[in-house]
Amino acid sequence: MRYVVFERAGATGVGRLSEDAAAVHPLDLPGAEAARGVLAVIDRQLAGRPVAETGERLETASLRPLPAVPRPIRNIFCVGKNYYDHAEEFSKSGFDSSAAAGAVPKAPIVFSKLPDCVVPHGAGIPIDPKVSQAIDYEAELAVIVGRGGRAIPKAEALDHVWGYAIVNDVTARDLQGRHSQWLIGKSQDGFCPMGPVATTADAFDLEDAMIRCWVNGELRQEAAMRQLIFDVPTLIETISAGITLKPGDLIATGTPAGVGIGFDPPRYLQAGDSVRIAIDGIGELENPVVAWDAARASAAA
Amino acid sequence: MRYVVFERAGATGVGRLSEDAAAVHPLDLPGAEAARGVLAVIDRQLAGRPVAETGERLETASLRPLPAVPRPIRNIFCVGKNYYDHAEEFSKSGFDSSAAAGAVPKAPIVFSKLPDCVVPHGAGIPIDPKVSQAIDYEAELAVIVGRGGRAIPKAEALDHVWGYAIVNDVTARDLQGRHSQWLIGKSQDGFCPMGPVATTADAFDLEDAMIRCWVNGELRQEAAMRQLIFDVPTLIETISAGITLKPGDLIATGTPAGVGIGFDPPRYLQAGDSVRIAIDGIGELENPVVAWDAARASAAA
Repeated sequence: MRYVVFERAGATGVGRLSEDAAAVHPLDLPGAEAARGVLAVIDRQLAGRPVAETGERLETASLRPLPAVPRPIRNIFCVGKNYYDHAEEFSKSGFDSSAAAGAVPKAPIVFSKLPDCVVPHGAGIPIDPKVSQAIDYEAELAVIVGRGGRAIPKAEALDHVWGYAIVNDVTARDLQGRHSQWLIGKSQDGFCPMGPVATTADAFDLEDAMIRCWVNGELRQEAAMRQLIFDVPTLIETISAGITLKPGDLIATGTPAGVGIGFDPPRYLQAGDSVRIAIDGIGELENPVVAWDAARASAAA
Repeated sequence: MRYVVFERAGATGVGRLSEDAAAVHPLDLPGAEAARGVLAVIDRQLAGRPVAETGERLETASLRPLPAVPRPIRNIFCVGKNYYDHAEEFSKSGFDSSAAAGAVPKAPIVFSKLPDCVVPHGAGIPIDPKVSQAIDYEAELAVIVGRGGRAIPKAEALDHVWGYAIVNDVTARDLQGRHSQWLIGKSQDGFCPMGPVATTADAFDLEDAMIRCWVNGELRQEAAMRQLIFDVPTLIETISAGITLKPGDLIATGTPAGVGIGFDPPRYLQAGDSVRIAIDGIGELENPVVAWDAARASAAA
């Protein structure tokens, strides 16, 4: 099943997406719950109080998309250098402060993005030349945790996955390198576009689903989910070994080769560009790149 | 002024600490606000609705201390290698995945700890040998942000500081090294003891206040605030350049020399140890080190 989060008449709604994605069947959720996006659905299901539909049928095209999780419960767990080809290209870029760990990491590299970076499909990715001269895209599959837990073994890990969404792990390469740890380079305002759709785990193909990313229509990234160096069960086992995962936690699983830094010379994002990401079985996420002042004006509108 | 957060009759309270610290004058806050600790005071002050006292006078010794910020609004910003002597000792330890940045960093190293790591004075720091064999203490001053903002210049940065608290940035050195980025090694369950007291900025000496840390009564760390490599205004300017800081954000400013990894052989924490931290003008934070199962039993009690 696919859920979608949207704005209608100034309020946040959550609905079921029809098979052909043309229609949305809204869920009957009070406003405060709906504002949490699919986290409300997860909490209801964990509490054994599934949500009913209102019976309405809305045209998907008439709705403004919002992030599947508009405000994550805490920083988003993110994984670095988790596809072989990307690990190679990043290691050679000169910005890899984790280079000592080797081009291909022996253990998952886990950092975080602030929850307040999340912006919807269509929002401008802000370029502020006073802060960074090297802003890059990273198409990623995000895991949405359902049932929480600690010390979750690999064999049981997928039982803790509620679903999947698309994120763009936008990165300021110069800041990522300069500050050694990646939080600042990864958490600039507006640096986590998230798609409106969350696909439940039972409806997603974690082996064969393809992830693709285009900049201005040019295909830049393309990989199958099975190409992850550390797969989803391994990531959950690793993080939860000593950290209690909570319902609604997000894990962005890393990006394939083809980011801007992988080109020579690097092809950083510029105002006027457009980044589109698609993952089979989920949908699409597209965001224009805009100058910082324009981004602020649009957010205030 | 010093505020203190405490438990009384199963509920969270916030109060003003008397000059001699012997008495607490509770603030008149509804339960939902008080549960947020000093964040409730910050929000009220920013909204121009200061909080009155109830007129009661409680014995400090009769109250169970809670963290000044029981649940931070998002991951805690933390700064690595921010005292010269500690930068040296950590670089030589073999666990420094940021070694490429040089022993003394040229720009602040900023990472994060999950908000759910925060535990009160007196809570057990859990040792789980299945997860880490190298758990270490780090005494730190934490900045509590008042008015938020973006692109805050150094000269105005202190206007955005509401106050200060004590934290112990507990670290699993083996995980810190193994995962290259520090989130996992820094965010294990129970790894952020926080003192109950928050001292307002006007009452804290950011130059001469001493920070000290004892393990089992033995002085291990001792430094003055002026010894920070990157001072508080620089940290705020750096983080806020492209990240909007919010009221209640926490910035743990780094630890002085004398952590366990600085000894040869390293002196890691063991169950039965006790870590006490004191900062002039704030107070003390003391936590026993306990086996994981004991920590869980105590948290459930």
